[in-house]
Amino acid sequence: MSKPQAFALVLAGGGGTRLWPASRRSRPKQLLSLGGAESLIAATFGRVSRVLGREHTLVVTAADQAEAMARALPELPAENLIAEPAARNTGPAVGLGALVAARRAGDDVRLAVIPSDAFIADEIEFGRLLAVAIEHAAEAIVTIGVRPLRPETGYGYLQRGALVREGVFEVARFVEKPDSATAVRYLASGDFLWNSGMFFFTARRLFDETAAHLPELAAILAAIRGSADPIATARALYPRAPKISIDYGIMEKASDIRVVPGAFGWNDVGSWSALADIRAKDGKGNVVIGDALASDVAGSVLVAESGGPFVGVVGVDDLVVVATKDAVLVVRKDRAQEVRALVDALAAKQRHELL
Amino acid sequence: MSKPQAFALVLAGGGGTRLWPASRRSRPKQLLSLGGAESLIAATFGRVSRVLGREHTLVVTAADQAEAMARALPELPAENLIAEPAARNTGPAVGLGALVAARRAGDDVRLAVIPSDAFIADEIEFGRLLAVAIEHAAEAIVTIGVRPLRPETGYGYLQRGALVREGVFEVARFVEKPDSATAVRYLASGDFLWNSGMFFFTARRLFDETAAHLPELAAILAAIRGSADPIATARALYPRAPKISIDYGIMEKASDIRVVPGAFGWNDVGSWSALADIRAKDGKGNVVIGDALASDVAGSVLVAESGGPFVGVVGVDDLVVVATKDAVLVVRKDRAQEVRALVDALAAKQRHELL
Repeated sequence: MSKPQAFALVLAGGGGTRLWPASRRSRPKQLLSLGGAESLIAATFGRVSRVLGREHTLVVTAADQAEAMARALPELPAENLIAEPAARNTGPAVGLGALVAARRAGDDVRLAVIPSDAFIADEIEFGRLLAVAIEHAAEAIVTIGVRPLRPETGYGYLQRGALVREGVFEVARFVEKPDSATAVRYLASGDFLWNSGMFFFTARRLFDETAAHLPELAAILAAIRGSADPIATARALYPRAPKISIDYGIMEKASDIRVVPGAFGWNDVGSWSALADIRAKDGKGNVVIGDALASDVAGSVLVAESGGPFVGVVGVDDLVVVATKDAVLVVRKDRAQEVRALVDALAAKQRHELL
Repeated sequence: MSKPQAFALVLAGGGGTRLWPASRRSRPKQLLSLGGAESLIAATFGRVSRVLGREHTLVVTAADQAEAMARALPELPAENLIAEPAARNTGPAVGLGALVAARRAGDDVRLAVIPSDAFIADEIEFGRLLAVAIEHAAEAIVTIGVRPLRPETGYGYLQRGALVREGVFEVARFVEKPDSATAVRYLASGDFLWNSGMFFFTARRLFDETAAHLPELAAILAAIRGSADPIATARALYPRAPKISIDYGIMEKASDIRVVPGAFGWNDVGSWSALADIRAKDGKGNVVIGDALASDVAGSVLVAESGGPFVGVVGVDDLVVVATKDAVLVVRKDRAQEVRALVDALAAKQRHELL
């Protein structure tokens, strides 16, 4: 028997309102470039396929986003784009991707589950960690944990346990987004890492854990796998899968998880204020993207999307201004995550054209 | 001889960048409605013509704005729209209007010079003061002075002198826009009034004062008046008239000026922050005009122009946000007058499409 192969499962089905008005239902965050040279999904595909090969990179997305993903990823082989029949969160999406990989390479295939919408500054260090994690996935569930740089309250954390081998630790526990005091404690302890949402395991291990913790999903995956027409079966059964994330549904329940800690300029770009951490700033600490002009402005994020209006800002500090053709957002930078309230209000007002 | 008639000269030739991006070269401030039921020029025409009659209301505007003015003022008789051959500020504009009025009604015609771009809340009180000022214009140059409500540094002032008769005072002097300490002193004194830019005199008096203080302009007006083809002569000579305001060129030099003081909710809408004084506010002191939504916002002015993007604002205080189809302005409310710096920067960058 040849050495088991490894496949990446790039999770690209998310909707996401946190970067509204640039992100919409029809244009999720992973399709945005946010002032970079390429979209987040294209950057993710590039960094993953460089390590695993594009033939071994699967992209799992929502059916109604499949066309946009194919356009965004011209180098992705068509048969590697997996369209979920319905959006059921990442637990079922990973199961579906694992079925495809296992059919191609057997149940011992190693899987690298990679979110599509994070930013990574140090591609070389990331590639190194990715190889370590994939290597180790033959014997355990592995995650890549990010060394925290600040007491971030917007991320989930995991606590590191004992050293397993060089660069690999046991995971003592996953913890939810902490409050501010707890985040400060986590940072000081040196034991806590940001949960990157990247997980590594064999297809066999995933199917076993799914059977143990998500039996309904396991039954659906088994039915698809055993079907003479798996696509039709998936279309019929997948929409009934439990709507649950891989984090909650499996990772936080599984035992014997390992973590590869690293520092590689990771940022999940959870709100507009994150652009201040990932893009170049002017002399006054502003990130200015697109056709925008700042006069006596400091510490702000100004985004004028192509095709939208010019943005002129005068005499403000620590503000986020984002303008698209049909919507403008203005929010204090330290409250950028509250854009959700605005999106909820628009939804309540049936302003579907803006969502 | 019948009683001399009175004509209004509504000055509507201004450009104005102070309400950018709503105001542009091709769409000056007086054409904006700013959340009101009608444009500032239409409101001005209505309040003046109600007192003087629309046959006696002349509108002086720039040649390239004449068409837009005609559209904005369907009730203005076509022959009462006077297009300046070139923009030469208000001094020459008043002279041109005075020529037209004098030709129709003789040199003893009384003239009411009324800027077209101010807001007035109390139309009834204004109508009363207008009648008083027009009545008195037969014997003196008269202005309407506005009782100050705050130590405003954005307006010119005039100092009241001795009482001439009930409701009419001598003008001791005109003064420039004061600094903050001086404005506080003016307000406390009770003697100072805001210069509304409304002036009243006979055509004869205007021609005399023009001859005394602006002889170049007087010569041009005389040539137009004496010409067999006054329109052709105006086209040839008017562009050479000195570019000077009626305030600086004549009013500050003439003697024996009277003032009719009043309080009638006057506001010259000199910047976006003025909207907070003239439009209804929500419970948190915000003025919200158009398709805009505020979440935890206070003391702000939000304007989403029809045809432009939706505006969503979260978690800010005392901010101005104005969105049009092709440009967005964000400026701290207490620095709203600094929009000029932005417009200057756009001009320097040759962004003519945004000016």
